[in-house]
Amino acid sequence: MAEKKKLRIGLVGTGLMGRTHANGYNRIHNFFPDLEFEPELVAVCSRNEEKVKAFAEQWNFASYETDWRKLIARDDIDAIDVCTPNDSHAEISIAAAEAGKMVLCEKPLSRTIEEGQKMVDAAEKAGVKTTVWYNYRRIPAVTLAKNIIDSGKLGKIFHYRGNFLQDWTINADLPQGGEGLWRMDANAAGSGVTGDLLAHCIDSAMWLNGGIKDVSAVTETFVKERMHQLTGKVEPVKIDDACLFHCHFENGSLGLFEATRYARGHKALKTFEINGENASIRWDLHDLNRLEFFDHADDSKLRGWRSIHVTDGDHPYIDKWWIPGCGIGWEHSFVHQVADFLKSLEDDSDCSPTFKEALQTQKVCEAIIESATERKWVDTGVDGQFV
Amino acid sequence: MAEKKKLRIGLVGTGLMGRTHANGYNRIHNFFPDLEFEPELVAVCSRNEEKVKAFAEQWNFASYETDWRKLIARDDIDAIDVCTPNDSHAEISIAAAEAGKMVLCEKPLSRTIEEGQKMVDAAEKAGVKTTVWYNYRRIPAVTLAKNIIDSGKLGKIFHYRGNFLQDWTINADLPQGGEGLWRMDANAAGSGVTGDLLAHCIDSAMWLNGGIKDVSAVTETFVKERMHQLTGKVEPVKIDDACLFHCHFENGSLGLFEATRYARGHKALKTFEINGENASIRWDLHDLNRLEFFDHADDSKLRGWRSIHVTDGDHPYIDKWWIPGCGIGWEHSFVHQVADFLKSLEDDSDCSPTFKEALQTQKVCEAIIESATERKWVDTGVDGQFV
Amino acid sequence: MAEKKKLRIGLVGTGLMGRTHANGYNRIHNFFPDLEFEPELVAVCSRNEEKVKAFAEQWNFASYETDWRKLIARDDIDAIDVCTPNDSHAEISIAAAEAGKMVLCEKPLSRTIEEGQKMVDAAEKAGVKTTVWYNYRRIPAVTLAKNIIDSGKLGKIFHYRGNFLQDWTINADLPQGGEGLWRMDANAAGSGVTGDLLAHCIDSAMWLNGGIKDVSAVTETFVKERMHQLTGKVEPVKIDDACLFHCHFENGSLGLFEATRYARGHKALKTFEINGENASIRWDLHDLNRLEFFDHADDSKLRGWRSIHVTDGDHPYIDKWWIPGCGIGWEHSFVHQVADFLKSLEDDSDCSPTFKEALQTQKVCEAIIESATERKWVDTGVDGQFV
Amino acid sequence: MAEKKKLRIGLVGTGLMGRTHANGYNRIHNFFPDLEFEPELVAVCSRNEEKVKAFAEQWNFASYETDWRKLIARDDIDAIDVCTPNDSHAEISIAAAEAGKMVLCEKPLSRTIEEGQKMVDAAEKAGVKTTVWYNYRRIPAVTLAKNIIDSGKLGKIFHYRGNFLQDWTINADLPQGGEGLWRMDANAAGSGVTGDLLAHCIDSAMWLNGGIKDVSAVTETFVKERMHQLTGKVEPVKIDDACLFHCHFENGSLGLFEATRYARGHKALKTFEINGENASIRWDLHDLNRLEFFDHADDSKLRGWRSIHVTDGDHPYIDKWWIPGCGIGWEHSFVHQVADFLKSLEDDSDCSPTFKEALQTQKVCEAIIESATERKWVDTGVDGQFV
Repeated sequence: MAEKKKLRIGLVGTGLMGRTHANGYNRIHNFFPDLEFEPELVAVCSRNEEKVKAFAEQWNFASYETDWRKLIARDDIDAIDVCTPNDSHAEISIAAAEAGKMVLCEKPLSRTIEEGQKMVDAAEKAGVKTTVWYNYRRIPAVTLAKNIIDSGKLGKIFHYRGNFLQDWTINADLPQGGEGLWRMDANAAGSGVTGDLLAHCIDSAMWLNGGIKDVSAVTETFVKERMHQLTGKVEPVKIDDACLFHCHFENGSLGLFEATRYARGHKALKTFEINGENASIRWDLHDLNRLEFFDHADDSKLRGWRSIHVTDGDHPYIDKWWIPGCGIGWEHSFVHQVADFLKSLEDDSDCSPTFKEALQTQKVCEAIIESATERKWVDTGVDGQFV
Repeated sequence: MAEKKKLRIGLVGTGLMGRTHANGYNRIHNFFPDLEFEPELVAVCSRNEEKVKAFAEQWNFASYETDWRKLIARDDIDAIDVCTPNDSHAEISIAAAEAGKMVLCEKPLSRTIEEGQKMVDAAEKAGVKTTVWYNYRRIPAVTLAKNIIDSGKLGKIFHYRGNFLQDWTINADLPQGGEGLWRMDANAAGSGVTGDLLAHCIDSAMWLNGGIKDVSAVTETFVKERMHQLTGKVEPVKIDDACLFHCHFENGSLGLFEATRYARGHKALKTFEINGENASIRWDLHDLNRLEFFDHADDSKLRGWRSIHVTDGDHPYIDKWWIPGCGIGWEHSFVHQVADFLKSLEDDSDCSPTFKEALQTQKVCEAIIESATERKWVDTGVDGQFV
Repeated sequence: MAEKKKLRIGLVGTGLMGRTHANGYNRIHNFFPDLEFEPELVAVCSRNEEKVKAFAEQWNFASYETDWRKLIARDDIDAIDVCTPNDSHAEISIAAAEAGKMVLCEKPLSRTIEEGQKMVDAAEKAGVKTTVWYNYRRIPAVTLAKNIIDSGKLGKIFHYRGNFLQDWTINADLPQGGEGLWRMDANAAGSGVTGDLLAHCIDSAMWLNGGIKDVSAVTETFVKERMHQLTGKVEPVKIDDACLFHCHFENGSLGLFEATRYARGHKALKTFEINGENASIRWDLHDLNRLEFFDHADDSKLRGWRSIHVTDGDHPYIDKWWIPGCGIGWEHSFVHQVADFLKSLEDDSDCSPTFKEALQTQKVCEAIIESATERKWVDTGVDGQFV
Repeated sequence: MAEKKKLRIGLVGTGLMGRTHANGYNRIHNFFPDLEFEPELVAVCSRNEEKVKAFAEQWNFASYETDWRKLIARDDIDAIDVCTPNDSHAEISIAAAEAGKMVLCEKPLSRTIEEGQKMVDAAEKAGVKTTVWYNYRRIPAVTLAKNIIDSGKLGKIFHYRGNFLQDWTINADLPQGGEGLWRMDANAAGSGVTGDLLAHCIDSAMWLNGGIKDVSAVTETFVKERMHQLTGKVEPVKIDDACLFHCHFENGSLGLFEATRYARGHKALKTFEINGENASIRWDLHDLNRLEFFDHADDSKLRGWRSIHVTDGDHPYIDKWWIPGCGIGWEHSFVHQVADFLKSLEDDSDCSPTFKEALQTQKVCEAIIESATERKWVDTGVDGQFV
């Protein structure tokens, strides 16, 4: 076997997303043996030395750092993977780009358009490769949905719906902020469910159905005050606990979106449905190996929603895994993103979404927050292609 | 509107099945206005005068009797509908046939082949029209299944499965026998779940998949003794609480069947599934308006079980009812059987299953009981066509 | 059996809703024998004599009229049932009330608040009993949902969602207006999916979750021109083909609603879901005998959405029908509404929703249209109790 | 971090099961950092040098062998993992045990009881630790089912059902035997679906519901002749394409089982359902993260099958993985088996099923084949505890 080219990785952040990315890198050698490149896990970085050391050991990183600036300064690293809370995405990514590193940034790109634009600019100026981990694109059933849509089977599109429903913050005694709970702190997260959950829905939506032109949104904060873990004080909650919006897509279809952490009974119900003139598609994360598909071209008496178990060898990514009927998991979407990033090095292509594309999602998020605050329709300013 | 021809009905039995049949007759005028015939509810019969009088009033019968022999003797009646417990099916049906009446008998035809054969013989000798109320054939989704199978879409058949799972007799304090509970009394019912539930499954199976050649069965009586309502004493339970069997069909496919009243969580889960070389079908009573259909001819990446909501105007019987998506109920299968019986008068055709056809189901039931008792395979002796 | 008191009915309109109501009246005698009152079908009215005569014959009305004014003038009628297109609801209902008749009006109450208010005023002035046929309240699973909510099991409510998705107008060659298609004509219908489909969702929502305070809506007309059946000319389509809105309920929860006739694959997918602090509920019309229920009080490892097959004797209305597991149909909701109206005569209570309550739904509908037209939030002005 | 103790592995066989086991070993370091032991992948063995070398490289084995006898002879190996076709399980396992190695053998244990008994004897004589890869026990939803059953929640058990339905051999042009298709060759496999699929069902069943006493089975070979890949000739097919059986369990419940490769539309539908006096459970592999549970103790109006998404931190194994709602895959069951084997070293306990326990499954399989051949009930001779 020819020696593989290496993509030397420096990972910043050891939380949940650090783990999912680290697993992604660790799986490539076993499951994608035909790629020209393979990741080399050079270093991981986090402020707590004891924890980062343990993480490096557990996930097979050769070394660790406790200061991300040092990580970026190392010349044995090709790419920086940013898995920190949202408030440091911009600073780290920009510094990494300026240091000539490729940047793989966890979603959302940034807290604001302004931050995101700077990230795009820095990457373009430096000419470095970027990607943002909107991992759901790479669940096989979702990729299959994209392929069906791209084939033109749906005809003119009328409706798109996207939800992301959770219930983990209903308990009013749950604190906000600090380790494990920075998503509850507006300073660290930028927003609540909008940046955390809706960003995923919007990325999926624009990838599958094109640009969102304008939005009309409403947000709500159901629990108004929570203990802050960092201050020890009860403080106002500034994130949005729930956000709903409707919109127009460039292609003339109507969109309807909802995200919340107060939907009792739903753990992580990310869903989408798209209704076209000739066919419709729907999917949900709780049954991630299935895609539902309705084809109006079927014999009229025998039409029905098909439940496609997306586990056959001719389904996207599945040839790398097991046998028909034996489903894969959520984690595999991150493995696929690593594989696709490596392939894009081989092909000298983009590993979508790049920073530039992910900035479009940021525009929609910011328009949503403005719309909810101002109680009015807001144009998103989204432009560009979605691939 | 031309005057309708009348089918003058005398109904025997006012239990659950009396009600479902009575409702069937009562609905024809509203929903099947194009039939040449319509039922005229001349008389209903039951031993308890107070009850039968109330039943006649409630269900629009013009008169009542308390002795079925008197009912049969009336010359203003064309057809006798037998809804009594199983132990009187033969006696009443034979007497009715001998009196020149058509006979519509609730399933199962009889307790034994011997009884059933006498019923067939009596009807043939008298030259009277018969039908047995295997109502599930006439649920639109089930009829659609039959149509699909008859179209040849499935190719060679490999497997057939039929279940009927209930849980209403688990409580050991439930008595046996007497009003409302004669199904628990072997004398009245002939058998337990075999005649009550499996008979339905077998009728569906042979209608959909042809004759059953041989069977290997097992039965069980989980609760060995119960208070008998008629004697007031604790007596041995002689019915089968559960019955499982496998079999060969004439067409070479394997059959697998189960019925029980001890399947906690299932109220009346009648199901079937048929697997062919090219396509498969499944159905269950708890979602009676749906038929699931898998077509291997679909594009390989887009194959999946289709959930067909059988509520469109081009689906069987549905043109008589409402609008797409607005499901009908279990009771409608009895209305359809009345309508089909009336149509068969118009066409001078059979309203399947006739006594003769239903006797085939009886043969399978008796073979099952023998197989379970003797712990051996038993040939059914089934012959004849299933239409 | 004591002689029943009669509610003498005059029905106006012989379309789909005329049929569902007529069936409702025809079933009462069989299934609700314990009511003090029973309907007497005195007369039905429609302009086409041939058709109305056939309808009277089919549905057991003793006579017919071709002019609704004559129907109202008859003194052998107690109650007028209005099943005409929306543009005549007000005129007929008001005339009926002024003639001292009770009025049972098909939904939506009216095309506008103004019309609806006049109807309420006329009924109040005349002191006549009213009801509006928001039939979905009386599907047993939906009534069970109401009972669960009223028991307080859900705790504080966070989210309510309601959809009504159809696909029958996608074909651009479908005409608008005239018989069978008046729902496509804004003059006859008042609006498109808002009055036709969303009105049902709003009625369910306010009954289950209380008043809607304000709305932000968007509408779309996907097919801009269609042949008009009455003029024979291609004319602009003025109805809304689709309508989406979000809202605030009085109880602080967020609402999200969508109705469309362009959701390929959905025949009549009316759904709702309500998420509370402690429990959640969801339902859809395509599986109308099921209610899904999630109870956070269940043991944490064993929590899951329960699929309740609402067919047991202790479920709402089910004691009148069959046996566990044997589902009923959409049509039964209309039978239940008749039964409840008759019961309300016996009890001298309201048969909800009365005109006054249904007017609240009209306020929301009108606010929706204004919001969509003006692209802004609109207060609904809803007040009053929902029972 | 303290140095881990090593379990030095030699793997024989590089087919599908070689891959799943190899993946199991490769994942331990990342996901089970708290175990005292970790696997060291010393060598892999297969006859084709080119392939085994590539496998070793892909799956991180330090070396390779092309003769399993050499592998067993190595003194740097503690445990032999047997992933070869069934016809060599006994020979390799016995030799490994005699060499003092622990043995982890892919299921089924053997082709016959005789072979299996020798394996048990050899392992006992050598005093070596064994396990058989009945991986389905370690899917979290299945383990949760076991926990519920062990808690006594179900009460007396009435029914157990197990299926394993596939459709991959319907095509009559598919050859038999040779690489990738040894499961079609009776010499290599011992039997068809009985040893391949039913063995899994039987292992699950006896683990969940105790010993199977006697069986009555039927088998079928639908395609009678196929080209043999090794001889290039059309030869009779000697495996069972389908097998159905019913049985009695020691606890008095009835069992019903079916496996086939001719169930069009089912890729790998392994299912089980168990019905107890007080509660029922069901599961299927196509939705492997869900467990359905019905509890009769729930309020009667609110009873329903619960769909438990087994992805919470307090569910079996899930604390090692991700977050609620984000499902894992089929492959994880093998990782869990490795982890449990390592834990059993730490605890000096058994990693169930041992050879001895797996031999009980072999007894049932052999009784099934005898029953099908002789067309009679056969006692299984199963004894021993299932843990």
